[in-house]
Amino acid sequence: MGLNSNRVENLACHETTIRIPTPTETMPPVEIHKVCLPPKQTTLHKLKHRLSEIFFPDDPLHGFKNQTGLRKFFLGLQFFFPIFQWGSDYNVSLLKSDVISGLTIASLAIPQGISYAKLANLPPIVGLYSSFVPPLIYSLLGSSRHLAVGPVSIASLVMGSMLSEAVSSTEEPILYLKLAFTATFFAGLFQASLGLLRLGFIIDFLSKATLVGFMAGAAVIVSLQQLKGLLGIVHFTTKMQFVPVISSVFHQREEWSWQTIIMGFSFLVFLLTARHISTRRPKLFWISAAAPLTSVMLSTLIVFLLNSKSPRISIIGNLPEGLNPPSSNMLYFSGSYLAVAIKTGIVTGILSLTEGVAVGRTFASLKNYQVDGNKEMMAIGFMNIAGSCSSCYVTTGSFSRSAVNYNAGAQTAVSNIVMAAAVLVTLLFLMPLFYFTPNVILAAIIITAVIGLIDYQAAFRLWKVDKLDFLACLTSFFGVLFISVPLGLAIAVGVSVFKILLHVTRPNTMVLGNIPGTQIYHHLSRYREALRVPSFLILAVESPIYFANSSYLQERLLRWVMEEEERTKANNESTLKCIILDMTAVTAIDTSGIELICELRKMLEKRSLQLVLANPVGSVMEKLQQSQVLESFGLNGLYLTVGEAVADISSLWKAQP
Amino acid sequence: MGLNSNRVENLACHETTIRIPTPTETMPPVEIHKVCLPPKQTTLHKLKHRLSEIFFPDDPLHGFKNQTGLRKFFLGLQFFFPIFQWGSDYNVSLLKSDVISGLTIASLAIPQGISYAKLANLPPIVGLYSSFVPPLIYSLLGSSRHLAVGPVSIASLVMGSMLSEAVSSTEEPILYLKLAFTATFFAGLFQASLGLLRLGFIIDFLSKATLVGFMAGAAVIVSLQQLKGLLGIVHFTTKMQFVPVISSVFHQREEWSWQTIIMGFSFLVFLLTARHISTRRPKLFWISAAAPLTSVMLSTLIVFLLNSKSPRISIIGNLPEGLNPPSSNMLYFSGSYLAVAIKTGIVTGILSLTEGVAVGRTFASLKNYQVDGNKEMMAIGFMNIAGSCSSCYVTTGSFSRSAVNYNAGAQTAVSNIVMAAAVLVTLLFLMPLFYFTPNVILAAIIITAVIGLIDYQAAFRLWKVDKLDFLACLTSFFGVLFISVPLGLAIAVGVSVFKILLHVTRPNTMVLGNIPGTQIYHHLSRYREALRVPSFLILAVESPIYFANSSYLQERLLRWVMEEEERTKANNESTLKCIILDMTAVTAIDTSGIELICELRKMLEKRSLQLVLANPVGSVMEKLQQSQVLESFGLNGLYLTVGEAVADISSLWKAQP
Repeated sequence: MGLNSNRVENLACHETTIRIPTPTETMPPVEIHKVCLPPKQTTLHKLKHRLSEIFFPDDPLHGFKNQTGLRKFFLGLQFFFPIFQWGSDYNVSLLKSDVISGLTIASLAIPQGISYAKLANLPPIVGLYSSFVPPLIYSLLGSSRHLAVGPVSIASLVMGSMLSEAVSSTEEPILYLKLAFTATFFAGLFQASLGLLRLGFIIDFLSKATLVGFMAGAAVIVSLQQLKGLLGIVHFTTKMQFVPVISSVFHQREEWSWQTIIMGFSFLVFLLTARHISTRRPKLFWISAAAPLTSVMLSTLIVFLLNSKSPRISIIGNLPEGLNPPSSNMLYFSGSYLAVAIKTGIVTGILSLTEGVAVGRTFASLKNYQVDGNKEMMAIGFMNIAGSCSSCYVTTGSFSRSAVNYNAGAQTAVSNIVMAAAVLVTLLFLMPLFYFTPNVILAAIIITAVIGLIDYQAAFRLWKVDKLDFLACLTSFFGVLFISVPLGLAIAVGVSVFKILLHVTRPNTMVLGNIPGTQIYHHLSRYREALRVPSFLILAVESPIYFANSSYLQERLLRWVMEEEERTKANNESTLKCIILDMTAVTAIDTSGIELICELRKMLEKRSLQLVLANPVGSVMEKLQQSQVLESFGLNGLYLTVGEAVADISSLWKAQP
Repeated sequence: MGLNSNRVENLACHETTIRIPTPTETMPPVEIHKVCLPPKQTTLHKLKHRLSEIFFPDDPLHGFKNQTGLRKFFLGLQFFFPIFQWGSDYNVSLLKSDVISGLTIASLAIPQGISYAKLANLPPIVGLYSSFVPPLIYSLLGSSRHLAVGPVSIASLVMGSMLSEAVSSTEEPILYLKLAFTATFFAGLFQASLGLLRLGFIIDFLSKATLVGFMAGAAVIVSLQQLKGLLGIVHFTTKMQFVPVISSVFHQREEWSWQTIIMGFSFLVFLLTARHISTRRPKLFWISAAAPLTSVMLSTLIVFLLNSKSPRISIIGNLPEGLNPPSSNMLYFSGSYLAVAIKTGIVTGILSLTEGVAVGRTFASLKNYQVDGNKEMMAIGFMNIAGSCSSCYVTTGSFSRSAVNYNAGAQTAVSNIVMAAAVLVTLLFLMPLFYFTPNVILAAIIITAVIGLIDYQAAFRLWKVDKLDFLACLTSFFGVLFISVPLGLAIAVGVSVFKILLHVTRPNTMVLGNIPGTQIYHHLSRYREALRVPSFLILAVESPIYFANSSYLQERLLRWVMEEEERTKANNESTLKCIILDMTAVTAIDTSGIELICELRKMLEKRSLQLVLANPVGSVMEKLQQSQVLESFGLNGLYLTVGEAVADISSLWKAQP
């Protein structure tokens, strides 16, 4: 334990100011190592390596290596249909868990399906259709064991808002329905292509910060829009911005119906209480899972009993019995609205993919198994393509239902099959029961579901840790609230990308000093024990050197040199003779960056200062070599570490005074 | 010299395969240092520091510190009007040099001015006006001593092509002229604002690679368009793409005029030869400088003499004598074409700014003085605003004329004043002389000027050094040639930005090994002497960790761990116990990145592997601290260097087996 206690002693930063010998005096003689180039590769080989890193970082065919043909075929089958992976080990005890969890999520999926379809301005029955076919497809193709598939609030909202801008769902219901199925088809096509082409990283550009803001904004808009149902208003804006929604609420005050309001708010309180209990105690998940169906049944019963007395409570009305009708004939591949359908498809596709993949990964990491992002994308994509041909609209893995699924003990995707079976029974036999279901209860269910999307704690954490992330979050929140859903999202993505570019455009540059007695060089401003090395200025650049920052870096580095010269002159220290550029964190360089290095060397030479590079990384070294810059640096221009550069150059100075 | 020869011996990479003792056996006991946080600062202070780094990297007010009020006023005057800096030291010998160079560039500026105005579809006289007022303004405000100001080919081409898309210069010449002045005004306003708001880094996004391709594409298009003049075609497309221009040339074959063709190609050969001689021998710069004016005079004389016999050679015709008429009444601030004017202004503004600033910097670095980019932008901007009110169109520092200016020995901006005076004399007295100047000679002058923009050697260097830069170059070349000038440019900027994002999205991850006998850890794949440390896997991430790469990094890092586990198992080596993440090159982290670190630690813990961070940089350390991630890492989770981490953890293992 000797060394360990020594370590603890040393944990305190040295804050003493006693005279410590300057680094060059105390440094042991250092062996100098050559900076190697990476192993030589042909352009084709490099391209192949780079492409495989870009598209196959997870090496998905890893298991296929050194296998026989039959085994490869079987592995391929498992690869495309994960059901073959776990299917053979399936047993009665797993089935029991899956049946329980499947029935639990069905009780949630039925009222949510009806509600979310209304959110997308679609007939309620489409929401049930969408809870039947997609879960079946997913259970064959999906690799997550806990994802509960069906319509979700965000995608429903976005589809409703984008399609309503082009076509009115009340005036042209058939065209609207066609556009919804077409958008679903394109969403699926887009999702499946992202997966097939392994371009899944596109969804990574929706950063968590952006999503927190976006979802909160969407939740506020959706909740406000539900005031239509909660207050019993008949004439309401179809727009999705804050201002028209609020003005609709207050301009139609004569339409408010007190019966609806009483019923709506009572059930809203009930649902929110149930949700609150389950959030506090995850073991009581079944309370919030059962609450929506209970509310639907109770409210339907109340309306049925009061029917003659309160005609002012609006009800769902007649729902057709029977299975999903085929809808491939309703897809719409030409005409003036095609662009709207494609755009809606892509935006809802991205959003639902983001939700589905994130939910899948969350539960996979809880149970310590891997979800392959690209395969998930293909599964979700094919599920939506199939959905668009069977009267379903965009579906994905829902966070709230998956959480219930997980808590209810789901073990495999069979829980999705059980849920689909329950929906099937509903579709075939129970539809008349929903005749008297009041619309107000759907509004209450939607509000309860979306209120959980407002994650103010996450927003606070963003503020605490990263102000620019918080800005991206705010931008998407207000963009969605006051401009429009797709534009708000686009602006937020723009802010996130701008943040990356800003970091590249204005990288940090630091002056390093030696920590006495070691070969460690560190930031002077951060480590008080670090000391300047006389006659040297050691600068570190903390970013790739690109066209976007090369002129900035030139100005900034020259300013460091100028300031150092002034400082040494003012303090009567030994004059500056050598600038060491620590390139450890310069992870890439382009032709402008190489020009900067040349230019800098020349400019410093004119001031009789030597420029030395320390530790260029592999790709940078390669480019310096290819552009023949290194030749101008000569033998004493390139070192493996700052320490070796200091030691060697100072010994040279001693040898040739 | 002992150490030096030792160094040379060590330059060869060790390629021997003898058994070298494993690092832990040979390593000296290492003192452990604490990783410090950067000094604590308030959010406001950090914001201030960050903003000053973004907007004032060159610390422009550096000279104003600790000065008296009067001195500050005088420095301010010098700051805004650099003429006060050098004006007091001006003497006769400087004046002599400036007069010679001023007259030389005037001889170039007059024919080029007329030609470039025609390139922009403007009356030739506007080109001369633009060579009079702007140089005067620049000589007051500009900080470059060698910039020769006037119309340039690229900006003329872009203005001509963008405005012609909206308005025909032959059918509505007055409206076209108004739009040109308005675009010039907005170009100037945009340039001056970039300078004032210190947003000059925006022009950095036009990377050199993009510009090489763009200029070559523009040169090809411009040269092809000059076939109109060279072949004597009357009816010609106003479009700027490759296909319509070529089809115009061959569809109007009956308009080809052999007299024009003979004259045009003779003078083209003469001009190109003169240019070739001057390129080979910079001392003979005056040959290419005098050639255009000589050609104009000769060809005018020929046409004048042959006038009665060859009416088919088209001539410039009548040019109004007199000074620039005021044109502020022609600015156009409302109406349907305002958007076109603003767009044209911004695009030509950016392009001319890029050229002007780059030219200024080039010659400043040759003579070892500094040009302040933001001040240059303001100078060029104010010059264009003033120009737009005095019948001038967009002007900037021209590369070809500035090179002649430099070679002719220009010392200060007075050479611009001399040039303006020569243009003044021309405007007042010599205009009738241009009556018989044939248009074909202007075409030859333009071709000679733009042919130098095709820098195939630079393109080849791009290919050799950086394939993605070459791709950006090709994109902008073909974009300009086949799509359109602004769109081609936009696509090329997109490619450049995509390149930055790609590097961030798919960063390099490397396995490090110890170089025996040292504390240096380096890439195994690059340094053959580097050895794996048993039971450790040392990974380096070469990029900031952002939302855009956090899921990639998670997959990739876990794959490294998996592969290492398989490798150790296959080779019967000691099992993996600890993963060290070298964060030296992780120059920034955001909330998604922090989540990745947490997630990774948890996932590795489930596999009984310890995760340790080495050397996080200041800003990363701060965020790790703020997000309370460090607490979960405990005492043995954070080290200053990889070497200290390896030493300390292995000694802990020895102490607690």
